[in-house]
Amino acid sequence: MAEKTETKKTKKKTNWKKPRATNKKSNMAEKNNLTKGKAQNGANAQMSKKAPKRTNKKRKSTPKKPNPVVKVFSLGGLNEIGKNITVIECENDIIVVDCGIGFPDDDMLGIDLVIPDLTYLINNVEKIRGVFITHGHEDHIGSLPYFLKLMNVPVYGTKLSLGILENKLIEHKILQSAKLNTVSAGDKVSAGCFKVEFIRVNHSIADACALAISTPQGIILHTGDFKLDVTPIDGEMMDIVRLGQLGNEGITMLLCESTNVERPGHTPSERKVGFSLEKILDSYTDKRIIIATFASNVHRVQQIIDASVNHQRRVAVTGRSMINVVNAAVKLGYMNVPDGALIDIDDIKKYPPEKITIVTTGSQGEPMSALYRMAFSDHDKVVLTDKDLVVLSSSAIPGNEPLVGKIVNEMYKRGVNVYHDSSVEVHVSGHACQEELKLMHALTKPKYFMPIHGEFRHLIQHKELAEGMGMSPDRIFVSDIGKVIEISDEGAKFSGTVQAGKVLIDGSGIGDVGNIVLRDRKNLAENGLIIAVATISLEEGILMSGPEIISRGFVYVRESEELMTSTKDIATRVLIDALDEGVKEWTELKTLMKNAITKYIFAKTKRKPVILPILLNI
Amino acid sequence: MAEKTETKKTKKKTNWKKPRATNKKSNMAEKNNLTKGKAQNGANAQMSKKAPKRTNKKRKSTPKKPNPVVKVFSLGGLNEIGKNITVIECENDIIVVDCGIGFPDDDMLGIDLVIPDLTYLINNVEKIRGVFITHGHEDHIGSLPYFLKLMNVPVYGTKLSLGILENKLIEHKILQSAKLNTVSAGDKVSAGCFKVEFIRVNHSIADACALAISTPQGIILHTGDFKLDVTPIDGEMMDIVRLGQLGNEGITMLLCESTNVERPGHTPSERKVGFSLEKILDSYTDKRIIIATFASNVHRVQQIIDASVNHQRRVAVTGRSMINVVNAAVKLGYMNVPDGALIDIDDIKKYPPEKITIVTTGSQGEPMSALYRMAFSDHDKVVLTDKDLVVLSSSAIPGNEPLVGKIVNEMYKRGVNVYHDSSVEVHVSGHACQEELKLMHALTKPKYFMPIHGEFRHLIQHKELAEGMGMSPDRIFVSDIGKVIEISDEGAKFSGTVQAGKVLIDGSGIGDVGNIVLRDRKNLAENGLIIAVATISLEEGILMSGPEIISRGFVYVRESEELMTSTKDIATRVLIDALDEGVKEWTELKTLMKNAITKYIFAKTKRKPVILPILLNI
Repeated sequence: MAEKTETKKTKKKTNWKKPRATNKKSNMAEKNNLTKGKAQNGANAQMSKKAPKRTNKKRKSTPKKPNPVVKVFSLGGLNEIGKNITVIECENDIIVVDCGIGFPDDDMLGIDLVIPDLTYLINNVEKIRGVFITHGHEDHIGSLPYFLKLMNVPVYGTKLSLGILENKLIEHKILQSAKLNTVSAGDKVSAGCFKVEFIRVNHSIADACALAISTPQGIILHTGDFKLDVTPIDGEMMDIVRLGQLGNEGITMLLCESTNVERPGHTPSERKVGFSLEKILDSYTDKRIIIATFASNVHRVQQIIDASVNHQRRVAVTGRSMINVVNAAVKLGYMNVPDGALIDIDDIKKYPPEKITIVTTGSQGEPMSALYRMAFSDHDKVVLTDKDLVVLSSSAIPGNEPLVGKIVNEMYKRGVNVYHDSSVEVHVSGHACQEELKLMHALTKPKYFMPIHGEFRHLIQHKELAEGMGMSPDRIFVSDIGKVIEISDEGAKFSGTVQAGKVLIDGSGIGDVGNIVLRDRKNLAENGLIIAVATISLEEGILMSGPEIISRGFVYVRESEELMTSTKDIATRVLIDALDEGVKEWTELKTLMKNAITKYIFAKTKRKPVILPILLNI
Repeated sequence: MAEKTETKKTKKKTNWKKPRATNKKSNMAEKNNLTKGKAQNGANAQMSKKAPKRTNKKRKSTPKKPNPVVKVFSLGGLNEIGKNITVIECENDIIVVDCGIGFPDDDMLGIDLVIPDLTYLINNVEKIRGVFITHGHEDHIGSLPYFLKLMNVPVYGTKLSLGILENKLIEHKILQSAKLNTVSAGDKVSAGCFKVEFIRVNHSIADACALAISTPQGIILHTGDFKLDVTPIDGEMMDIVRLGQLGNEGITMLLCESTNVERPGHTPSERKVGFSLEKILDSYTDKRIIIATFASNVHRVQQIIDASVNHQRRVAVTGRSMINVVNAAVKLGYMNVPDGALIDIDDIKKYPPEKITIVTTGSQGEPMSALYRMAFSDHDKVVLTDKDLVVLSSSAIPGNEPLVGKIVNEMYKRGVNVYHDSSVEVHVSGHACQEELKLMHALTKPKYFMPIHGEFRHLIQHKELAEGMGMSPDRIFVSDIGKVIEISDEGAKFSGTVQAGKVLIDGSGIGDVGNIVLRDRKNLAENGLIIAVATISLEEGILMSGPEIISRGFVYVRESEELMTSTKDIATRVLIDALDEGVKEWTELKTLMKNAITKYIFAKTKRKPVILPILLNI
């Protein structure tokens, strides 16, 4: 390989610097045709301040002066699904790729959502040159409102990604102050010493991009989420030519998503769903058809509209997020809707049911989603009957099957015809299967590789996939959130950690629910609560009032009066005895009462409710 | 059809009585060769008391006297998975088929398990002639200890089913008093006016049977759980000949399981797993192999032992239920273990790791199962390393995927090689797929059909399957628990309901946790709790002590001191104001305090914790 000769010339140990140098040259060549996304809110001004500095440094070909170290790490999306956020840092510059939300685990009772711990970025806010969005899914942009409230840095993304983000920023009332910069696939953005090129990929949302990030240590390619669709709905196939060019020029590190690494073969084209939809509409000419899918899957919705128009059906949309996304997509030109094809949900009564298609949210069985409300007869516009066909154009996210099953059962009870899961091919994944991942590796030929977006088992299987293609294990970094990879002229290696973790959102509280609170909730949830409360005059050493026994979530009190009465007797006896013996210690009195009740309740019920002794002093 | 001519002769409206008459004759012919399961504990004496009565009645061929009405209903297993129990009643006789447990839904916080509401049976205990067990799975026998504590009636089942049941009865300390009667496939048991024939079927547990129940209204065939395995491990194929004979003679009603009705085709033979295991053992000659599967799948364990012996490996067993079942199966002759093949888990150190296979529970990722403890380095005998291969010989029950994913990730982190899911065929289902269900319908040719064992969607799809085979929809009963089907000479129809439902078990409490308690637990779990407690002298109208504010599961108090202090101030203000205004009503004072806190907390946090106002009087 040419690189090897190069290595000898520059007298360095590792053989991966030459491609970096090549990249830099090509970057410079492109310099005059930079950043179509216009400077807004002073964002680019900030960037241009730094760019020349870097250029000067690099132009010198003195082999002695080392190139600055580049650090790569994730604050989310490793060893977990969702909450994707990657940070790339070099000297005084930081860029952030995506900032998504995660979903609470089963044991995070009452938690609404999970965002990444952003402490490291907050402490280095003056370095941040921008957030670069790969696509508009929740797990990639959902935490941005929280991020931007803390650090109002410029955001770069394609039109649809920013269109969806805008809805969120409006909800959080920070749209006015946000510095949003629209880019298109093919655009390059300078940001400090970095230059970020947006490269078209296919995914289950339109306008998704990978990012080729030029750094002083060469190109870092972040795939975002992707699949290869050779017959995409919008005609925009993943730009494998550009990926291959970059691969030929030399890529230092590949950060590649791992979601479907356990699946062999190729993910089918989105177009396949279109064929299935056509078939269904051919067959069910006498039914109203309700199709549930992910709101953000603009191409799916486009295909539903196309098939409906082909069959002289009008399309109505329901579900808040579905309405938001369809409106944004139509406004921004991502959907092609013939005049009159889309009607308001209020107007469906004006047409024969068999001439109506309804597109709805709720394909995961989410409680209170539009489809859930339809299934449980709680939707004010759509009443399901045996004249309806419901198509779940989705697959249940692992763990959600019982939720989906619940609404399917309800719909069957209403006589509704239901298409779900395997029976007909009404859904395809948005993520690359093994063969597509291999294509990505083959095209980009990276020096180093960090699998991203997956639980540990996905990351390790992605490592095995890369090894299977001949990559040396010591060039593959199966990392964790907060774990820093340092790329220097000497090579890449793990080097320390930064603060990373989960911040839980409950209502408007950010991070005020932690492990102790969750442990309490779990105890309360599983065992219920018994409160024993009494008023004592510590001075006189006498019980003034109570103890009263109050329970919640333990047993149905009216049917357990005896148990409650005995508990009260026991608590009273313990308190009086202790006071008689001269115990004056608040904590001791409480502990005595708590222990006596715990023991008695367990003997009687084999249960361990939370016992809360409360004493008031007079 | 011959039946039709018959109908005219007997001058009845429906055309399904002749086969019944035929059945009765064949039943009588078999009478001298009854019940190999010997009379124990006076069970059969009880039965014989009733038998002649029925015989006399039937021998008369006077067409005027109608045959007694037979009622069929389920107290569990319809519109739910698990908790299977079917009741057949005729005049003074009741028999019960199975009595299984259900598993708590996600919203049944803290509930250990769910058993059927047995009120109807308790109220009719003097009629019950016996419980007949189709097979030894939890969802078919798990509630029997609770049942037998209430009603100590005779139990009939095959050797393995009763062997597994005995372990449970020992745990519940009622084995001594239980009236267990062992039968074999092919045996017939008289029970009041009924005669129950056990018919071999294949399933994921050995010694499973369908039941052909002769009644005064003809034969009711209950399939239990089944599949057709033409190459079964124990050589005992489902007795399709006997099923076909009965079908030819005439079956009044088929009760057929519906678990896999959504899956086309045939369920593969258990033997297929054996081939996969052989391949795995061929490939991994340098690894210790740990295989997780369902404890009750005796044939699976047999195949693991066989493959291990073929590869000169010793087999150790871990996990309480696995040890119990293997011991029972070996003792009862259901397993064929060469001398020395099984070793104690304590002795695995005496052999090279690559000569050891460990069979374990935990294939569903159950917390605290043996595999879970291994994955989290908490198993005192087995420490997993990169020298181990773990095979999950199972598929995740819908909803359990996150649990299984969790332990797979942990094992990968320990460098363990893991085979799970689709990669290799290491699991097959125990339930009939569509083609096997069709075979059952084709063999038994029932007059009436009630799909059982499934959620509503399964039942309705099973109905559609039967209709697809030409069955008239009005002969198919998609029922619900407690809904009675009455079979008379006039035909079968829905006729009223009996009490049915879920009884929740929490600790040693049976049914003392109901909806109110669960709602409290859910509220506490999702929102936590704030207690405001104060002592008041109602007489003097003054606040004596408090209010104190105590919270659990709400916010981490040390970091929210300000919020807690303000809450206390607000509660104090409200109480003092109300007392000053002369409010003396206990409830009013509490409500005022509760409302003020609720409003304040919501404004500050957008959360709605449970607010518990407690006032003590002096």
